[in-house]
Amino acid sequence: MTDRVLGVLGGMGPLASAEFMRQLTLLTPAERDQDHIPAILWSDPRVPDRTAARQGRGPDPLPALVRGIRGLEAAGCGAIAIACNTAHGWIDGMRAATHLPILHIVEAAAEALRLQGIGPGPVGVMGTAGTLAMGLYQQGLEGDGWAVSVPTEEEMARLVSPGIALVKANRVAESYAPLAEAARALAERGARAVVLGCTEIPLGIAAGPALPFPVVDTIEALALAAIRWASPDAARAAA
Amino acid sequence: MTDRVLGVLGGMGPLASAEFMRQLTLLTPAERDQDHIPAILWSDPRVPDRTAARQGRGPDPLPALVRGIRGLEAAGCGAIAIACNTAHGWIDGMRAATHLPILHIVEAAAEALRLQGIGPGPVGVMGTAGTLAMGLYQQGLEGDGWAVSVPTEEEMARLVSPGIALVKANRVAESYAPLAEAARALAERGARAVVLGCTEIPLGIAAGPALPFPVVDTIEALALAAIRWASPDAARAAA
Repeated sequence: MTDRVLGVLGGMGPLASAEFMRQLTLLTPAERDQDHIPAILWSDPRVPDRTAARQGRGPDPLPALVRGIRGLEAAGCGAIAIACNTAHGWIDGMRAATHLPILHIVEAAAEALRLQGIGPGPVGVMGTAGTLAMGLYQQGLEGDGWAVSVPTEEEMARLVSPGIALVKANRVAESYAPLAEAARALAERGARAVVLGCTEIPLGIAAGPALPFPVVDTIEALALAAIRWASPDAARAAA
Repeated sequence: MTDRVLGVLGGMGPLASAEFMRQLTLLTPAERDQDHIPAILWSDPRVPDRTAARQGRGPDPLPALVRGIRGLEAAGCGAIAIACNTAHGWIDGMRAATHLPILHIVEAAAEALRLQGIGPGPVGVMGTAGTLAMGLYQQGLEGDGWAVSVPTEEEMARLVSPGIALVKANRVAESYAPLAEAARALAERGARAVVLGCTEIPLGIAAGPALPFPVVDTIEALALAAIRWASPDAARAAA
C-alpha cells in the first residue's frame, strides 16, 4: 500500500480523465482495493479551451488550472498529473504556482517510445492545433534525437480537430475513421511510430481496428509515470 | 453549463469509480468539454474493507469515509455520490457529518427499475456479503412493493464474493462466469430483474455476453441520479 496520493488535473476532456483513472487502476499490480493508488481527480470541464486561448480566440486557462492545482494541494496530494496535453503549454505558470512536482506528459510519452524500442528517427505526433503550434512535442522529443512530423494543415482541419471534437461530444465511435486516417498518413510519410498527443485521440483510436504500426497512448504513458511516482517498487515488479 | 460540482466518494474499488466517471460523462448531453459536469473524485482505496467491518473482522470505515466527505466539501462540491454500495451502510454517520446532500445508490437503483418498467414483484439483488447482511436493498426496495431475493450462502461463497474480488484484483474478464451464473440463478428462481448491487459487479457482467433478462447497473443508475442533480434541464432533455 502506498500513502502517496496522486492529484489528477482533469476534465479536459472528462472522458479522457475517466480513462486515465481506469488505466491507473488496471496498470497497478493489485490484489484488492487497498493495493491501489489513492488519487484525487479534479475534473473541471469549465477550464477555458486551451487551443482557442493559444490562438487568441478565448480566455486564458491558467487561472482555472491553478485553481485546480490549489484544490489538489489542499486535498493532500503529493504530485500532479495533468490529463490534457495542450494544458502543458501553461506548465511554467502552473509550476510557479505550486511546490508539488508535476509529471510531464511529453516526458511520459518519450519514456513510452523508449520502452517500445523506438530509437532516434522520425516519429509522428498528433495533437490539438494548440499543442502543435506551441511545439510541445517538437521541443520535448527533438533533443532526444527523434524527428517530429505532424499532420498537414489540411489534415488538421479535416481529420484531427474534428476527430478530437467528436470525442469531447461523446461521439467516440465516429472519431475513429478521421483519427486513424491522420495517423496512417503520418506513417506513410515515414513516421516509425505515432504519438497520440491529445488525450482524446487514444479513445477514438481504441474504438476501431488496431493500427499496423506502433502508437503511443499518452493517457497510458502518463498513468505509467504516475505509478512509477506512487510506488517505485510496484512499477519495477510490473516491468 | 452547470456550476454545480459533484463530489464522488470512491476508490471502493477504484475501477468502479473510473467507470462511474466514464458513465457520468457519456450519459451527459454534451457537445464540448464545457457542457460536462464538474466533478471531484476522491478515490481512496485505503478505506477499510466494508464487508470485513460489518462482519466484525476489520476496522470501522466511517472515519475514512468522513475524511473523504470533508475533502469533497472543502473542494467546493454541492452533493456527494458514493460509488460503493456497501459503504451506504454507514450513510447515517456520513449524513450526520455533512450538510451536503448524499445521493443514495439504492434510491437510484429503484428509479432505474421504474424506468425499465419493472413494477412490484420479485427482483434479485446481488451484492457483497456486507450489503446483503445489512439489508440495504431489502429495506430500500420492499417498501415500494418489490420482493427482494438474494443469492444463497453457497452462491455467495462460490460465485459472488470471488467474482467481486476478481474485479478488485484487475481480473475483470475472469469475473464474468461466476457473476453471470449467480445472476442467472436468481432469474431462474423467479426474479424479473437483477440489481447488480455492488459497483464491481456491472464491470464483470459487461465483460461477457449480455444476460437474457433485465439488470440494473448501479454505477449507471447512480450516474443518472447525479446528472439529474447537476443539471435538471439536461436530464429532462435526455429522457
